[in-house]
Amino acid sequence: MKDFIGEDFLLETDEARRIYNDFAKNMPICDYHCHLSPKEIYENKAPKNITQLWLSGDHYKWRIMRACGIDEELITGRGDDKEKFIKFACALSYAIGNPLYHWAHLELKKYFGITAPLSVKTAEDIYEKANEKIALGDFRPQTLIKNSNVKYICTTDDPTDTLEYHVLLQKEDIDFKVYPTFRPDRALDIDKADFPQYVEKLSAVCGEEINDIDSLISALYMRADYFSSVGCRISDQSFGVVPFSVINRDECNVIFTKAMSGKVPSFEEAQAYKTYVFTALCRKYKELDWCCEIHIGALRNNNTVMFNKVGPDAGFDSMNDKEVAQPLSRLLDSLNTAAILPKCVLFNLNSKDNLVLAATTGNFQSSDAECKIQFGPAWWFLDTLDGMTAQLKTLASVGVLGKFIGMETDSRSFTSYARHDYFRRILCSVIGDWLNKGMVSYDEDMLKEIIEGICYTNAVKYFKF
Amino acid sequence: MKDFIGEDFLLETDEARRIYNDFAKNMPICDYHCHLSPKEIYENKAPKNITQLWLSGDHYKWRIMRACGIDEELITGRGDDKEKFIKFACALSYAIGNPLYHWAHLELKKYFGITAPLSVKTAEDIYEKANEKIALGDFRPQTLIKNSNVKYICTTDDPTDTLEYHVLLQKEDIDFKVYPTFRPDRALDIDKADFPQYVEKLSAVCGEEINDIDSLISALYMRADYFSSVGCRISDQSFGVVPFSVINRDECNVIFTKAMSGKVPSFEEAQAYKTYVFTALCRKYKELDWCCEIHIGALRNNNTVMFNKVGPDAGFDSMNDKEVAQPLSRLLDSLNTAAILPKCVLFNLNSKDNLVLAATTGNFQSSDAECKIQFGPAWWFLDTLDGMTAQLKTLASVGVLGKFIGMETDSRSFTSYARHDYFRRILCSVIGDWLNKGMVSYDEDMLKEIIEGICYTNAVKYFKF
Amino acid sequence: MKDFIGEDFLLETDEARRIYNDFAKNMPICDYHCHLSPKEIYENKAPKNITQLWLSGDHYKWRIMRACGIDEELITGRGDDKEKFIKFACALSYAIGNPLYHWAHLELKKYFGITAPLSVKTAEDIYEKANEKIALGDFRPQTLIKNSNVKYICTTDDPTDTLEYHVLLQKEDIDFKVYPTFRPDRALDIDKADFPQYVEKLSAVCGEEINDIDSLISALYMRADYFSSVGCRISDQSFGVVPFSVINRDECNVIFTKAMSGKVPSFEEAQAYKTYVFTALCRKYKELDWCCEIHIGALRNNNTVMFNKVGPDAGFDSMNDKEVAQPLSRLLDSLNTAAILPKCVLFNLNSKDNLVLAATTGNFQSSDAECKIQFGPAWWFLDTLDGMTAQLKTLASVGVLGKFIGMETDSRSFTSYARHDYFRRILCSVIGDWLNKGMVSYDEDMLKEIIEGICYTNAVKYFKF
Repeated sequence: MKDFIGEDFLLETDEARRIYNDFAKNMPICDYHCHLSPKEIYENKAPKNITQLWLSGDHYKWRIMRACGIDEELITGRGDDKEKFIKFACALSYAIGNPLYHWAHLELKKYFGITAPLSVKTAEDIYEKANEKIALGDFRPQTLIKNSNVKYICTTDDPTDTLEYHVLLQKEDIDFKVYPTFRPDRALDIDKADFPQYVEKLSAVCGEEINDIDSLISALYMRADYFSSVGCRISDQSFGVVPFSVINRDECNVIFTKAMSGKVPSFEEAQAYKTYVFTALCRKYKELDWCCEIHIGALRNNNTVMFNKVGPDAGFDSMNDKEVAQPLSRLLDSLNTAAILPKCVLFNLNSKDNLVLAATTGNFQSSDAECKIQFGPAWWFLDTLDGMTAQLKTLASVGVLGKFIGMETDSRSFTSYARHDYFRRILCSVIGDWLNKGMVSYDEDMLKEIIEGICYTNAVKYFKF
Repeated sequence: MKDFIGEDFLLETDEARRIYNDFAKNMPICDYHCHLSPKEIYENKAPKNITQLWLSGDHYKWRIMRACGIDEELITGRGDDKEKFIKFACALSYAIGNPLYHWAHLELKKYFGITAPLSVKTAEDIYEKANEKIALGDFRPQTLIKNSNVKYICTTDDPTDTLEYHVLLQKEDIDFKVYPTFRPDRALDIDKADFPQYVEKLSAVCGEEINDIDSLISALYMRADYFSSVGCRISDQSFGVVPFSVINRDECNVIFTKAMSGKVPSFEEAQAYKTYVFTALCRKYKELDWCCEIHIGALRNNNTVMFNKVGPDAGFDSMNDKEVAQPLSRLLDSLNTAAILPKCVLFNLNSKDNLVLAATTGNFQSSDAECKIQFGPAWWFLDTLDGMTAQLKTLASVGVLGKFIGMETDSRSFTSYARHDYFRRILCSVIGDWLNKGMVSYDEDMLKEIIEGICYTNAVKYFKF
Repeated sequence: MKDFIGEDFLLETDEARRIYNDFAKNMPICDYHCHLSPKEIYENKAPKNITQLWLSGDHYKWRIMRACGIDEELITGRGDDKEKFIKFACALSYAIGNPLYHWAHLELKKYFGITAPLSVKTAEDIYEKANEKIALGDFRPQTLIKNSNVKYICTTDDPTDTLEYHVLLQKEDIDFKVYPTFRPDRALDIDKADFPQYVEKLSAVCGEEINDIDSLISALYMRADYFSSVGCRISDQSFGVVPFSVINRDECNVIFTKAMSGKVPSFEEAQAYKTYVFTALCRKYKELDWCCEIHIGALRNNNTVMFNKVGPDAGFDSMNDKEVAQPLSRLLDSLNTAAILPKCVLFNLNSKDNLVLAATTGNFQSSDAECKIQFGPAWWFLDTLDGMTAQLKTLASVGVLGKFIGMETDSRSFTSYARHDYFRRILCSVIGDWLNKGMVSYDEDMLKEIIEGICYTNAVKYFKF
């Protein structure tokens, strides 16, 4: 029996251990997609205790607590911080096999030097020790980022955002770069009740009237240019259901006008509108040489009672299982035909779509870039040992693994960089197993290039940081 | 090479063997879903021979015989019992990797003490030896159940069932409990030709006229109360395609009236009717604190020629691949919003839905119960080594494995309890592998609680037996 | 660390090595589905160099080159052959885990005696050595086929094909048989622009006027009879989306007439037409005792720009994710009910359909043949280590592995027979692992029969060669 989450965690062969230690372990991190707050990075305040650090915003943790029947007061409610932590520890000890179980222990070890397994027996002791470390040591965001060897962070920002903290951060003397990401979801979500308010806000930020589809797109272009001036290189787009329904400007204007008048467009109208606006945005992304990340398949806010109680992004989301292949293919093809297909990273939330996405990338590669269309790393519910392994193997099977841009955290937490180590161990485990079985040639130069590439350098090159 | 299906079958690590022997092997069985006949349990008659025991009702076995090109006369027809057994043995020896291959050998060993591999060479000898045992020994249902260490059995019963054998069994001095399960499928299958006849039968059983949707629901409530009085704690619902289409009482009544007049409702009408009636039933289940098992995705009676020849449930079923995520989410949400969401166990028949179901459970957990919404054990075509492993790993990845209620047999056979041993070996193999690799802390107390829980105690607690 | 792609490649247990060497390795090949050119086989010309051999027609290789950002001039364009080869070698060294990486090295070893890993470092040297071998040795198609121990080859041919090279080949004194396969896709693709031209061509080949659906079917029957006379035993049908929409002859005629007049039928009309014509064809196949291969789920020509540049079958295809289960079941059932269901091999291109197809076969087995409906070997994007393993395990889980007809190449290349060795190693690895773990009885006779069967004899028996 190996040590519990020890030095060789997930590394079962000599080859895996060797390539992990030689090529992966010490590479810097390029976190090209996350939900960290630039304000929190800039203000650089330490958390009050480990409950705040771990449980104040992490809906992954909330879900396993709810599955254990714990009262919401002790999850997102006004319960005592210590009691919350102990309840979480208790829930975690039943959650063997869940990535949270590994992440939590990796974080305790990496950031707190604590190696005892977290359980109801150890929870109180670990709570005290962790809080001592927080009080004594340095758990401020910038220090955590620096100590995690992070070189680039791309946050996720609404087009209406002023990016004031990004601007401030750029003037700071820090060892890493923080860039905004342009996420225009609210400008595309025409079937949401607050769409008209959002358009008004966008109009106000731009100082331009938005009264038709042209002026809307013009406003988004203006914000994209501003984002670009603050270092943005990436757009992020969420499609619950991939749209592909071609309409012309006048037809789009009718839908836009309908929505602005307070009437909710039909699903079909919304999909057509999204196709139109997304296409227009891609024209801009291509011009700016941005990459467009496309996150496919989230099914959000499934529990109305809890949505009304605790709001969105609180652990009540899952994935849908709609058709992806044909609409996605048609959408990318129409962009390609118009010569406005930007670099893209395709993410799926439903594991059934792994092969479809991996194979779709292969239809639109070109000499524009190495692996111009990327099959993105395992996302959210797939960001697990099996999910990451499947993503790597699917990509390898039908694409070129060596050109993969690798992992991001997609996280709201400053200690979640341990997940990069988790990813790297899985990557080296997969390739190490192939080496061990004579399925890959032991060419030191190639292995170094491939593994360093997937850990860090491919992303830096791909995004042109 | 290990012994063929020996003591350590499926247990590849020291840790797997240890936790299996210490915590899993000797736990009692809570068979919370099966298709055993309460009449047969009560009458307690021995089978005539192993052909009757194994081949008289097991469509899993029939399918592999048909795949080998064996004539139907020797499968479900009037062929000789011995010849049937020999043909089956022959087919089985080609079916390596099929769970039947393992189950049959586990059963031969456990119930007959026969360890020779079954094949065309050994079939005749095994046929004689097994029949001797049946003649000499005790292969009556109650003895098989008792010797299998079964404590609870939940059969599957139509609301119109008198439950007379359940009532009789409760008066018997036996070491296990047999409870009915309320399965109202025929009351929901409004698009089947015999729906009006079924409603008439229900009306007769209740002694109440059923002339509209209200009186139908009232009759079903009356039967649910009766089932409850005989110990029922579970409802079982099969949805080929998950319905979610909201209509009001008057609209539902129109569809009901149409069907009662002999006109077959459209698919859309049937789905709306099912949504309405299922919602009404959940109100009752919630009130009775029942659990509702939902079996999703069966595609039945695919071969019309054979349906006309040998009827339903004869090995001509498979799974569909319709959308599940959004309708299921909306259905559960609407029940939850109305505060009538009972405990649920969600079963899928198509492996592509594993992640969707496991993730959906997480949206509706609450402090009502520990893991109120369960991702059910691998069902039917998924009840295989790989299928069970995938179910356990998917559940672990996005939920809390330690709160899982574990295995049921879903079987029509009194020797199928060997499948619980199969499940337990797979469970211990998965967790043992994690322990071996340092991925789970070796905390004896937690392991004991988790494994005993999944084998038996979680289910007893969950169903409140 | 094992040797790179050595003798024991993919064979991790003693049992795997034993059964591979004893039963699998030396079996002949029955390549019951490929895209080899009968003209090239007949003309028997050697390639000019390894670039022509490997890169002139292999869209698998083109895809990984494009993913590496290589210019199309050096892929399908007029670039220098040596430079093309070096670029390919470079791309391949990043494509670890891709079956191409294994296939290329297996082919270098088997046909060229080269064991050095192909990479940018070795490419030039390997290019020279391989070309020397091509110049000196015998790389003509018939020699490659003979040396690969191939006994049967089934090419893929349009009904309008004269089969002249098949006729010529049958007069040759060669050690293998080459049969045509009847692939009537163009007669079913009524929604393609060139459909009327195709019908005219068919009419001309038959010397009969085709002016309605009856005469179309009559023409196809005539060609099927001709194909049969040249040794054809198989039809091949591609369904992007499985059709099942029943119409009568008059309705079908309306659609046919519409298409012949140059109007493109709707998707629904095309699906109904396909159902009608495919049903009519199955009547003929059944009469001729042919097998019908059904390839499901290709999504072709996704990149319009590249389609216009390099045409079809050039590496811009992937798979769709439409519903398969219900239409396929209904289609097979309607054929079965009409007593015209021929032997079928069902292939899926989307891994999500593995279980659906494997389970569907079980609904239509009969005493007509051993495993009359086959779940076909892993196809195209699934023809990978993981894809083949999954196909074998899925088939074993819900069907009878021992009756499987095994591998075909589906290839356009004369060195692709190395893929049969790849398949056999995977097959023996799976079964060897089961033997090693005591999950299969070590019955030498059964193992020999099963493995030789899957490698060769089952197919010969099934197709009645």
